[in-house]
Amino acid sequence: MVMELARRVKGLKASDIREILKLTQQPEMISFAGGLPAPELFPAEQMKEAAIRVLETAGAQALQYSNSEGYLPLREKIATRMRSKLWIRASASEILVTVGSQQGLDLSGKLFLDEGDMLFCESPTYVGAINAFQVFRPRFVEVPTDEEGMVIAELEALIARHGRPKFIYVIPDFQNPSGRTWSLDRRRQFIDFIGRNQIPVVEDCPYAELRYDGTPLPPLKALDTHGLVIFLGTFSKILSPGLRIGWLYASRALFDKLVVMKQSGDLHSSTLSQMQIAAYLDMCDIEKHIETLCRVYRQRRDAMIRTLEATMPESVEFTRPGGGLFSWVELPQGLNARVLLRSCLERNVAFVPGGGFFPNGGHEHAMRLNFSNMPPARIEEGIARLADTVQEALEARAAARDEPTTLARAAAAAR
Amino acid sequence: MVMELARRVKGLKASDIREILKLTQQPEMISFAGGLPAPELFPAEQMKEAAIRVLETAGAQALQYSNSEGYLPLREKIATRMRSKLWIRASASEILVTVGSQQGLDLSGKLFLDEGDMLFCESPTYVGAINAFQVFRPRFVEVPTDEEGMVIAELEALIARHGRPKFIYVIPDFQNPSGRTWSLDRRRQFIDFIGRNQIPVVEDCPYAELRYDGTPLPPLKALDTHGLVIFLGTFSKILSPGLRIGWLYASRALFDKLVVMKQSGDLHSSTLSQMQIAAYLDMCDIEKHIETLCRVYRQRRDAMIRTLEATMPESVEFTRPGGGLFSWVELPQGLNARVLLRSCLERNVAFVPGGGFFPNGGHEHAMRLNFSNMPPARIEEGIARLADTVQEALEARAAARDEPTTLARAAAAAR
Repeated sequence: MVMELARRVKGLKASDIREILKLTQQPEMISFAGGLPAPELFPAEQMKEAAIRVLETAGAQALQYSNSEGYLPLREKIATRMRSKLWIRASASEILVTVGSQQGLDLSGKLFLDEGDMLFCESPTYVGAINAFQVFRPRFVEVPTDEEGMVIAELEALIARHGRPKFIYVIPDFQNPSGRTWSLDRRRQFIDFIGRNQIPVVEDCPYAELRYDGTPLPPLKALDTHGLVIFLGTFSKILSPGLRIGWLYASRALFDKLVVMKQSGDLHSSTLSQMQIAAYLDMCDIEKHIETLCRVYRQRRDAMIRTLEATMPESVEFTRPGGGLFSWVELPQGLNARVLLRSCLERNVAFVPGGGFFPNGGHEHAMRLNFSNMPPARIEEGIARLADTVQEALEARAAARDEPTTLARAAAAAR
Repeated sequence: MVMELARRVKGLKASDIREILKLTQQPEMISFAGGLPAPELFPAEQMKEAAIRVLETAGAQALQYSNSEGYLPLREKIATRMRSKLWIRASASEILVTVGSQQGLDLSGKLFLDEGDMLFCESPTYVGAINAFQVFRPRFVEVPTDEEGMVIAELEALIARHGRPKFIYVIPDFQNPSGRTWSLDRRRQFIDFIGRNQIPVVEDCPYAELRYDGTPLPPLKALDTHGLVIFLGTFSKILSPGLRIGWLYASRALFDKLVVMKQSGDLHSSTLSQMQIAAYLDMCDIEKHIETLCRVYRQRRDAMIRTLEATMPESVEFTRPGGGLFSWVELPQGLNARVLLRSCLERNVAFVPGGGFFPNGGHEHAMRLNFSNMPPARIEEGIARLADTVQEALEARAAARDEPTTLARAAAAAR
């Protein structure tokens, strides 16, 4: 066949993560690969009650077309929660309901990116965002980050070298994949920087409410006096990803254009799902539900960090996230996480190799570990197996280099 | 602000239809503007039972992430119905569940269109498809159609003049907006033509099962031995648009790429909605439901055509659709439907001016009328008002030209 496809098709590939997830469906597999919420915590019974209420009291409306912006009572509830929980002075009239925050990424790409345009992002960054933006064939410039967030001096230097990007994409809270959170100071400096340079920002904020330690911090959007930040929120991590309901909040000028993009892409999000979530928020206590999530995920995070500390060779580094779903592990240079994954799968343990989180490649020595999807005992067992595999790989590397291994050193020390 | 947006943003505008729909929410308005199914026919009670079953028996699965292709049991049921109802030898493994067929249009645009690429479409064509494709900044070439469908000789001539398009977009059954249906002969000639020229086709098929007269015809996909046709289906018109569940069926090579596009755009469609429709299909008789829709819509179509025949001036032409949701009305040249709409809104009657259905503009003398959304008596009242407004516009035009009006001619004849 001689069909000619768009140029963008060539650059695209299926998400590594979703391919690995397909391999990890067997019950004996301990998979740290997904970013899945704990299914046993879903409020299925309450969602059923919400569905019943909606379909009994407003069935015709719930099953009919609705407007592209979204169901107004849900947008109002979202705005109220953004004001009370995230310090964002949101108004319902500038909230657009999306198909998860993934669609917010697609719409942001559509809004800003012509082929060859440049965007800045963290390094590493969310692989789903890389895939969403890649469709528009931009150039990605990865901005170095430290423990507090994007380094402003590096941003200045990159703009001096490459020019202004169309936008900057960031995940300031419990970042996927690194688990890192920006400090309040850095948030302020960053907002100051984008204001001076008039650069739009896409702030992806799925994890901020899953905080297990310390004090909540305002999202960038709460500090944004310039109207430059597009805020992406979602019910995926605090309620249910299967409903595919997220939202974006943007200043009026951008909002109106994003609505047109939404309309041309799928007309609107599911009326029933929107009304069902609105009914759930009326009938149930989502704040208590989120507290439960935090309590359970904190235990799982603790189990993972504790076991990493106890079992991993010293040369392995990992983040200790204060919230979210992920820890980021860096193997000693020279170990390749994709190769390691093959050995791990043989032991029925899985993770996502880190290389996919860098739009320009490299960094094959890192991996992302999810801790939200299984109980502590299973996390401990899985991390122990993972640590064994890493240890073996180190031994094999040392043997290949004819270096003393840890075991050999220990034996020497014991002598 | 100096934010620079993508070039595509400039060309986009909110759908005329959706803007008009916002104006026509008042209960006293008789609106032929939407493409809305009859809400009183939605199986709300049965959808409630389906939601209960899903959330009671598989709540954790329904609320969790799932794969990008869609929920397999639903894809299997769709494949079965496509085989038995539409003669399409579909297999579930090449069915991708989408957010309505609107998302199928977005994905098709993503798959084929680079900026400046050419696509062919009917003239007029679905305004939502124009908007979906416009995002990718193509050139639209409108192919003349006659009562049997696209005219093959015109296709040949257009290719000779402009070259091969990236794809051809068509709605062969009860087209939106014209109500026209392609003949079987023309479908065969068209498939033969695209096979000879190896041109992909996007076949949008939301209305085929809403047939009120005559014998069902096979969709193009049923005749497609070349694997060139991407078929777009949807539950929007046969069950519920509010659930936002459609699908596409494509040959493997295209399918795999479309799945990656879907994944990068929104990860997957609502797991709960997919399982709910699958449960509905298990528990209820959708064929009987579609029979009911056809019976009711046939009466409404009849009421509209009968009243158009009885009340419209002779110089007005309109289609007599054998199914679907729309009739297409052509006013005498010189009358402008957008101007007429303003007079109609004063009389609380609304429609969609036809100009928006032509990607390259023009044709301001046409209008689209929907008949599925209200009972016959209201259709009769609305069409009568519309006819009065047309009559007045003709009188005014004649007066301006100093021509004898119908009334003056009648008075003269009576003398």
